[in-house]
Amino acid sequence: MATGSAPPDALLSLDPETLARESRAVINLIAGYYRDVEKYPVKSDAVPGCLRTLLPDAAPENGEPMDLILEHVRRHIVPGLTHWQSPNFFAYYPVNASAAGFAGEMLSAGLNIVPFSWVASPAATELENVVVDWMGKLIGLPASFLFSGGGGGVLQGSTCEAVVCTLAAARDRALRRLGGHEAITRLVVYASDQSHSTFQKGARIVGIPSSNFRVIRTWAASTYGVTAESVREAVEADVASGLVPMYVCATVGTTGVGAVDPVRDLGELARRHGIWLHVDAAYAGGAMICPEFQDYMDGAELADSVSMNPHKWFLTNMDCCCLWVASPDVLTSALSSNPEYLNNISQERAAAGPAAVDYKDWQIALSRPFRAIKLWVVLRPYGAAGMRAYIRRHVEMAKWFEQALQADERFEVAAPRKFSLVCFRLRPRYDEGDEAVEELNRKLLVAINASGRAFMTHFVVDNKFVIRMAVGGAMTEMRHVRDAWELVREKAKEIGHVPNDSAGHY
Amino acid sequence: MATGSAPPDALLSLDPETLARESRAVINLIAGYYRDVEKYPVKSDAVPGCLRTLLPDAAPENGEPMDLILEHVRRHIVPGLTHWQSPNFFAYYPVNASAAGFAGEMLSAGLNIVPFSWVASPAATELENVVVDWMGKLIGLPASFLFSGGGGGVLQGSTCEAVVCTLAAARDRALRRLGGHEAITRLVVYASDQSHSTFQKGARIVGIPSSNFRVIRTWAASTYGVTAESVREAVEADVASGLVPMYVCATVGTTGVGAVDPVRDLGELARRHGIWLHVDAAYAGGAMICPEFQDYMDGAELADSVSMNPHKWFLTNMDCCCLWVASPDVLTSALSSNPEYLNNISQERAAAGPAAVDYKDWQIALSRPFRAIKLWVVLRPYGAAGMRAYIRRHVEMAKWFEQALQADERFEVAAPRKFSLVCFRLRPRYDEGDEAVEELNRKLLVAINASGRAFMTHFVVDNKFVIRMAVGGAMTEMRHVRDAWELVREKAKEIGHVPNDSAGHY
Repeated sequence: MATGSAPPDALLSLDPETLARESRAVINLIAGYYRDVEKYPVKSDAVPGCLRTLLPDAAPENGEPMDLILEHVRRHIVPGLTHWQSPNFFAYYPVNASAAGFAGEMLSAGLNIVPFSWVASPAATELENVVVDWMGKLIGLPASFLFSGGGGGVLQGSTCEAVVCTLAAARDRALRRLGGHEAITRLVVYASDQSHSTFQKGARIVGIPSSNFRVIRTWAASTYGVTAESVREAVEADVASGLVPMYVCATVGTTGVGAVDPVRDLGELARRHGIWLHVDAAYAGGAMICPEFQDYMDGAELADSVSMNPHKWFLTNMDCCCLWVASPDVLTSALSSNPEYLNNISQERAAAGPAAVDYKDWQIALSRPFRAIKLWVVLRPYGAAGMRAYIRRHVEMAKWFEQALQADERFEVAAPRKFSLVCFRLRPRYDEGDEAVEELNRKLLVAINASGRAFMTHFVVDNKFVIRMAVGGAMTEMRHVRDAWELVREKAKEIGHVPNDSAGHY
Repeated sequence: MATGSAPPDALLSLDPETLARESRAVINLIAGYYRDVEKYPVKSDAVPGCLRTLLPDAAPENGEPMDLILEHVRRHIVPGLTHWQSPNFFAYYPVNASAAGFAGEMLSAGLNIVPFSWVASPAATELENVVVDWMGKLIGLPASFLFSGGGGGVLQGSTCEAVVCTLAAARDRALRRLGGHEAITRLVVYASDQSHSTFQKGARIVGIPSSNFRVIRTWAASTYGVTAESVREAVEADVASGLVPMYVCATVGTTGVGAVDPVRDLGELARRHGIWLHVDAAYAGGAMICPEFQDYMDGAELADSVSMNPHKWFLTNMDCCCLWVASPDVLTSALSSNPEYLNNISQERAAAGPAAVDYKDWQIALSRPFRAIKLWVVLRPYGAAGMRAYIRRHVEMAKWFEQALQADERFEVAAPRKFSLVCFRLRPRYDEGDEAVEELNRKLLVAINASGRAFMTHFVVDNKFVIRMAVGGAMTEMRHVRDAWELVREKAKEIGHVPNDSAGHY
């Protein structure tokens, strides 16, 4: 036996009793936060420096008690947050939390394993295989995207990552066909003026020249969905100039107004030209659990990849994005790496066999959290029936809000509501120019948010500034939507927008 | 008031009492897991299909009770995991958990905000500004990487993401200088044969041709650190052929053997050629909190970016990677996007001011979890002094293991130990060829892992198959390292490797 003295005592940083005691204190804080969350201004009224100036400029030299740290969370952090879980948060799109999503995240953080390969945690990899198949079936995906049908799925952190992965796969597929890397400057990506900015950013990240990113105009006539006809024109023009159409995105539920692109039409176009079709259902994918919405995904069997975010409107705490691909090989050939330090020595590799997925080759990063347990724990206590009821409840509330707007002559619904997002604005009155209308609507939005009673955001569509009311918070009940409507009416009045005495002038 | 009936009752998916009750049950499960974790085989002995065949092939239609779900976690999931938090896990590199890291992750998951811009949660953004400065100071980074010194940092999920971001920034900087996107096929990235595979994968993702990725050979003479001389030769050869050196990585603590590249020498070379230098201290960055290790980062002021992972050897549960850049503008010019739906309307934008960081422009994804609260909660209860003691304890244990090996003539330490990783193998005996030695060491590793009493992985350096003993688990105490050494000796004997009767033949 070698010599050498034992090192000093452990920090006991993972002592189970300490962990249990401190975790219970955190739970009290979080449960209390949810009890009180309606009391805070939804959008933080903090000013820059609000927190920075309160904290020391270096980490403490000596340890501090957890009670004090949690007290600082309550006193310094919580008041400076914008409260995404407030039932009065109607901004952007919802980012759901739930008791089950929280439990799932705790399990992931507590077990703290890293399932980058099958061997690195077999049950975690297999649970991910199972749960992405479950989720794919729930939202009516074609069998070709399921492991059971020859495709497969992976849980990533965000649509942006998923988009970068699919863009890299599409790029490499195109470059293989074209026979050389120089062709990268000829590859073209198509999205609509309603597509998420992640497609443009993703295309830049994977090395597509900015000048080869086509933003196709949409119109009110197609309710802001892109038409395959206008994409076809752009594709043909590019082909005529010697460029190579590579990737097109179809969004089901755009970020601005919740528009839907025609998946089948775009799929047929994509197939004719060998273009990769990605279907982005980040927000509205959750609604696809209800059969009455599944027609919006009609034609998905023509796509190469589909993604949706359970962390948006599906009760799964941050973060969780499902990405499905029809041909896993095309994805992994762009993303695989096999360094020696990750190889399993022969016996183990043989034992794992070809059925064992190594998820490191399905995403950007090597290390990855155990997200599968979170989604699995979300899907079970609510069940498919519970999730459908949850989605339908929000859609009904949004419908109610839309009807309220339609019944008030001062307002107009600025784009057709398809899911739980309502876009509206104060209408122009007879004597107002476009700028004045925009100014009035900006004022209205500022007044709504400054009240602290709700948080909404805006969008600009057809040069119109519109206010977005995105229903979908886990704690949002009908009373919150009614209150939001009262708030909108009240603030419209305060900023001086009263109904004309002559309705004919509208 | 508009008409319309109220939607059905809520799921009560975020009811505080339900959340508190179910969360306490999860805590009992996790605390129990840590109490029992030594009882499980460290590396799972599961066979493919272990879990898949146990689970139904579709999500349940109706909700199931949380108690049942947690029982399934205990019965089906836990036995199929490889136990990264076991004190006998010595594979790959450690991925630490701690009571504080778990508390921090619970706070992040419970508050469930999305700090993509300052307005989207001011205190979260400012806490991130503060905590990356704290962390940078703790590990002795030059002031130029701190917000307080004109640089700045961001918390991402993984080194891989950080590397993709810095590669994209370096690529765009080079392309701006070269005046056109076509030059992308002339850009060259340099790493050593010891660098993490993420550099090669990242270079492919951002569109650098695979043929422009240089793997520079390292040697035992420089303890597997790359020499600036050999990088210089490659750079000059590339320049002579009309290529453009763009990015070089210096690793402080490589994945295979824990080698250290000469940061200052590479920095000087990089400066001369306008090459982006990234310092990857994913694992060993944690050790830089101890002054005795900070010399390894000497010259970091010449780098463009530095990264390290608190989720490895720094008590921060998955996931958390710190990335610092000297010129935030170069990073954000590659990664920024400004869609209308994220714009804050004028009054709010003006109020936030230039000091307000929008972290969406510092990373790939738009959405992002609240990682700053986790790292903040880790740094406080242990304090800098506690973290130094934690790191030194592991280094001492690794040193003890190294001395034990050195005192046993059957073994050799295969690369110099710098931190808490010891690479070793059974030495060749007088009558053995290289293949026989490799076969023997493979057998030894298989026997160690099959025992269930420890999990180690391997690497190949200088064509030698070596076993990696990576100390650094949060629960690893001296007794576990002693047991591991006993296990190694026992298995070496079992596979028939007994000392020669003549030491002279070694």
